[in-house]
Amino acid sequence: MRKVDGEVQAWTFLDPAHALAQARAADEERLTGRPIGLLHGVPVGIKDIIDTADMPTENGSVLHAGRTPSRDAHVVTRLRGAGAVIMGKTVTTEFATRAPGKTRNPHNPAHTPGGSSSGSAAAVAAGMVPLALGSQTGGSTIRPASYCGVHGLKPTHGLVSRRGMFQLSRSLDHVGLFARTIDDLALLLEVLAGHDEGDPDTRPRARPPYREIAAEEPPIPPMLGFVKTARWDEMEPDAREAFSELVAHLGDRVEEVELLALDAGEWQRIIMDAEMALNLAREWATGRDRLSPSLRARLESGHTVRAYDYLRARAGVPALVASLAELFEQRYDALLTPATFGTAPAGLESTGDPAFCTLWTLTGMPAVSLPLMQGASGLPLGVQLVGPRDGDARLLRTGRWLAECVSAD
Amino acid sequence: MRKVDGEVQAWTFLDPAHALAQARAADEERLTGRPIGLLHGVPVGIKDIIDTADMPTENGSVLHAGRTPSRDAHVVTRLRGAGAVIMGKTVTTEFATRAPGKTRNPHNPAHTPGGSSSGSAAAVAAGMVPLALGSQTGGSTIRPASYCGVHGLKPTHGLVSRRGMFQLSRSLDHVGLFARTIDDLALLLEVLAGHDEGDPDTRPRARPPYREIAAEEPPIPPMLGFVKTARWDEMEPDAREAFSELVAHLGDRVEEVELLALDAGEWQRIIMDAEMALNLAREWATGRDRLSPSLRARLESGHTVRAYDYLRARAGVPALVASLAELFEQRYDALLTPATFGTAPAGLESTGDPAFCTLWTLTGMPAVSLPLMQGASGLPLGVQLVGPRDGDARLLRTGRWLAECVSAD
Repeated sequence: MRKVDGEVQAWTFLDPAHALAQARAADEERLTGRPIGLLHGVPVGIKDIIDTADMPTENGSVLHAGRTPSRDAHVVTRLRGAGAVIMGKTVTTEFATRAPGKTRNPHNPAHTPGGSSSGSAAAVAAGMVPLALGSQTGGSTIRPASYCGVHGLKPTHGLVSRRGMFQLSRSLDHVGLFARTIDDLALLLEVLAGHDEGDPDTRPRARPPYREIAAEEPPIPPMLGFVKTARWDEMEPDAREAFSELVAHLGDRVEEVELLALDAGEWQRIIMDAEMALNLAREWATGRDRLSPSLRARLESGHTVRAYDYLRARAGVPALVASLAELFEQRYDALLTPATFGTAPAGLESTGDPAFCTLWTLTGMPAVSLPLMQGASGLPLGVQLVGPRDGDARLLRTGRWLAECVSAD
Repeated sequence: MRKVDGEVQAWTFLDPAHALAQARAADEERLTGRPIGLLHGVPVGIKDIIDTADMPTENGSVLHAGRTPSRDAHVVTRLRGAGAVIMGKTVTTEFATRAPGKTRNPHNPAHTPGGSSSGSAAAVAAGMVPLALGSQTGGSTIRPASYCGVHGLKPTHGLVSRRGMFQLSRSLDHVGLFARTIDDLALLLEVLAGHDEGDPDTRPRARPPYREIAAEEPPIPPMLGFVKTARWDEMEPDAREAFSELVAHLGDRVEEVELLALDAGEWQRIIMDAEMALNLAREWATGRDRLSPSLRARLESGHTVRAYDYLRARAGVPALVASLAELFEQRYDALLTPATFGTAPAGLESTGDPAFCTLWTLTGMPAVSLPLMQGASGLPLGVQLVGPRDGDARLLRTGRWLAECVSAD
């Protein structure tokens, strides 16, 4: 794996001996005849903003170099409980914001893998692990999943606990999931979803059988709403064309839906900038000269956000969620919409633009990127499907139906 | 009652015929032999920021003159369900902030009744109703209760739903309770407490038998922590003396507790100013010339609060709550502390200073003002007892014990 990683550079920490030891312990556990977990012996990559008690967690910043947490994050505890092998820590951009890490796109190392969950998406794409965890505060799971050609899921806000994950923005942070198939996403979600007192945005609720629902045939063919968004014209021409073909192929199972002009992008930015400024206050106070210039500028601007504007943005979200919920109640099983402006851009200086993800992050609605298309260059291009809050299981079911439609082409 | 009110001016809306009609309906209901509610036929005064479908609710502002809500607030629905007679609407300061209404202190009409729940405290003090509802965002229940010589309770934040009450600050707003006895406070709380989906800060939980617990003898004599606060020296000398005598009288059942220097007052102000600016945005945009100069100035300053400072204040509260919770876990049944700087100040221009209440409002801890003392002028002076969050029932029990200690003097 180190050889494969030589080009991709997905890992910031990888200790094969330690991974083998975990795998051996799992084997021994199995031999006892005791019931084994859902992920018994399965290697999982963990984004380096998610705490692990047996490996460093450096949050993509020299300021946290050598940081070794004393406790596993909640999701890591759940993975271990299900028998998973924690393979190593995957590269993140600086504090899961914009300044890139070393990772390259496995499909073409001259292109970005996307970010901020760069290493997790790339490690799954390169076949180094079947599953990985990332995060999304803007577009940090859906975007790299689209660029790397893997399945990425941002579950409903509050479905998966963020305790022990670096907090950028309580209102916007989500744990993100990467896998090679929809079934694997459902399996991973089944392990991770649930209430945790350590994350006040999770709450007790019945857990649907994610794997079972995701694997079902929909009782009637789903109806999709195609959301071009206000920035359709800014997309790469080959990506626009791929979407147009997909929509044509789906025939009467899709309708174009125009969303009202929304301040969502602006609201997402205001909330993220204000909350980031607080969550990075210590780094700002003691080490701002070792932050990237772009993060420094963003924090500077974050300090100037008015509480009035922040609270207005927060207060606007419930009405936005309610208006979007109506679309699902009245007509659509899922919304179909671009994940990215096109395939992974050339160069490693930028991880790409999250604009097509921010509305769904702001509203906490579940979103999945499916690797169903490719661009003119042959690089992969994701299709984003969005569902109503808490509709994660059915969103995966609709995703599987869509993938079958496309492959029947 | 109109004659009594002539001097006190507790009411902004009072329709004796309508109150009589409610009472008659209650009588008829009783004659059917069906089970009757806990407050069957009991008249209750409602602060005029709490919506009533059968009476105007004007929020103490000319901007809302003639406003007639279409639905009862959640607490009014609960009162009616328990058989109470909604007597009328009591005077509030402008939008429950500082600019006073017309109400006078029933013990001396040249003195303020306190605010912002001026009419509710005065109506109970004057014997016009045995129960009334107010609110507290700074010190709007405890302060007028102390000045008017009645029992006032600010329950744990999130225990009583605020749906249909004018929102100044979601983080700080509480429904406040006024009564002539502790038993009546417990009875009223038993009717009002509980989960309501319309107030996201309430949550489902088992409801303790408030009346039963409040009426119990404590199993062992309670231990109180006496909190002088950093502003003890600014109190009226007769109030300081009254507290010193009370503490001396309690002997080994009280110990002085020094709280660490706290930013709580500043945090409370930042949070309230920022949230007020949002909640009064429409009034600011369309009618700011008809707001009082003091509210105008406060909103102006509220618009300049930085999100960073707001979020830092909000983020500081949980640690503050945890540190105070330890006091209760380790040693004290309740904290004993001044409710006000002294008895009701002369004049009606100001409703007095809420400084002794803001910490308990910010932390959402239950606080009760007991009319156990008086100042040199003969005016009443409240004793504030504070309990741990969700310890409302035991706080009332401790209050009853304290009242018995004092009357045994």
